[in-house]
Amino acid sequence: MKLVTFRPHGGATAIGVVDGDEIVPLAADPELPTAMVEFVALGDAGLARARALIGTAPRIPLTDVAIAAPIRPRNNVMCVGKNYYEHAAEFAGSGFDASQKQVIPDEPVIFTKALSSLADPGDPVTVSEDPTESSDYEGELGVVIGAGGRHIREAEAFDHVYGYTIVNDLTVRDLQKRHVQFFIGKSAHTYCPMGPYLVTADDIDDVGALRLQTRVNGELRQDAVVKDLIFDIPRLISAISTAVALEPGDVIATGTPAGVGIGFTPPRFLRPGDLMEVSIDGLGTLTNRAV
Amino acid sequence: MKLVTFRPHGGATAIGVVDGDEIVPLAADPELPTAMVEFVALGDAGLARARALIGTAPRIPLTDVAIAAPIRPRNNVMCVGKNYYEHAAEFAGSGFDASQKQVIPDEPVIFTKALSSLADPGDPVTVSEDPTESSDYEGELGVVIGAGGRHIREAEAFDHVYGYTIVNDLTVRDLQKRHVQFFIGKSAHTYCPMGPYLVTADDIDDVGALRLQTRVNGELRQDAVVKDLIFDIPRLISAISTAVALEPGDVIATGTPAGVGIGFTPPRFLRPGDLMEVSIDGLGTLTNRAV
Repeated sequence: MKLVTFRPHGGATAIGVVDGDEIVPLAADPELPTAMVEFVALGDAGLARARALIGTAPRIPLTDVAIAAPIRPRNNVMCVGKNYYEHAAEFAGSGFDASQKQVIPDEPVIFTKALSSLADPGDPVTVSEDPTESSDYEGELGVVIGAGGRHIREAEAFDHVYGYTIVNDLTVRDLQKRHVQFFIGKSAHTYCPMGPYLVTADDIDDVGALRLQTRVNGELRQDAVVKDLIFDIPRLISAISTAVALEPGDVIATGTPAGVGIGFTPPRFLRPGDLMEVSIDGLGTLTNRAV
Repeated sequence: MKLVTFRPHGGATAIGVVDGDEIVPLAADPELPTAMVEFVALGDAGLARARALIGTAPRIPLTDVAIAAPIRPRNNVMCVGKNYYEHAAEFAGSGFDASQKQVIPDEPVIFTKALSSLADPGDPVTVSEDPTESSDYEGELGVVIGAGGRHIREAEAFDHVYGYTIVNDLTVRDLQKRHVQFFIGKSAHTYCPMGPYLVTADDIDDVGALRLQTRVNGELRQDAVVKDLIFDIPRLISAISTAVALEPGDVIATGTPAGVGIGFTPPRFLRPGDLMEVSIDGLGTLTNRAV
């Protein structure tokens, strides 16, 4: 099922199911919540109620709404550093990693992006407010947690995956380096576009086969398949939940492949006007313009 | 004003003002919100309404309620690594910092704790669920942001401080080291006790003069004054808000002084049964037991 958070023109934010080129708003069932994070917490029971609305409830054309980030999690967006081999090499070679000499980490490198950095599909990303002029894109697959928990074993990890979305893990490289811990450089206002959809896991046959492509002004910059992750999705969920209590709706951005701006010599940082498009098979395209 | 989030026995979580040994519940004014993060967002207008209730509204004895963490921020709790000189030295000497060779950082080192790690005063901290047996306490002053914003200058930073609380920035040292970025090792379930109160900034004459003391089983382990911070509160707010849009109710734990468990040889990690008490002048004592 393709879920969406949206705003009708002049209306309040709502959630719905995308069916063809229309949205079935879940508000047709007054017992369903209006925020995606609460809907996700309902698990299969919520999905069953949503399914019952398709075919009966009134619809809105997708063209009549603004699509928002699919979910605002309860915790900061969790992210994985250096999780594709070629990207780990380009990052190490760029001189922008002040935190670790090792190119390929032994254990997942996890940091967070402030929720105040969340942006909607189509929102401007304000790179002109980065005084260091070192802003960079990172197209990533986002995993949305369904059932929360701790001490989740790899063998059971996919039971905790509700679905998938796209995250652009935008980064101020200079701040990422200067502060050693990545949080500040990763959390600039508008630097976490997410969406356009939250596609439930049952709609994805083989997440490892999904192809991720990032284009800047139409030029293909990143092109990889999810199975090339150094630490795969079960390993990430297991490693994080060793300590952290994952909650329904939490988002884990799984890392970016090679082809970011600092992978070039000289680096190709974002400039106002640049159009970023991150596409993943079955999940759509997340489009944002740098301003 | 000394604000508190509390639960009457068998009742729902509420907020109030502590006056002597009693609470004035803010629910007496139906226009005030029930969550502290929303009350903080009201700024001075909220405080004026709260003040009007003191002397008129009914009261509850403090002994009749359970005190909760004063606030659940909108973003993960932000924390500062290595922000007292002697602690920076003991951390560097311990071998548990895999992220940076430099003992004294050039810029503030900022990471976050998952909101799912929040714990109330008196809550058990489940160190027995840490398979690495390397759990450690860190008593800290927490700064609560009032008016949010970006690009906040140091000279205006205190205008954005709503008040102060106490944070115990508990850490799984082995995970902090293994994952290089600190998030996982800092975010274990129950590893972020906060409270007991949120004391508004106007009640604190000179935050730099506040003395912080941490005791474990009654033994004094940490003893420092806030003015010994390497990066002071204005510098922290300015550095973070260079990129991050701070939001009302955000919490910045300002770093821990010397005397944590890894400062000893051999390290004195927490064991089930250990009683932690973090006291700061005017802010009370945050007490939690390791189990």
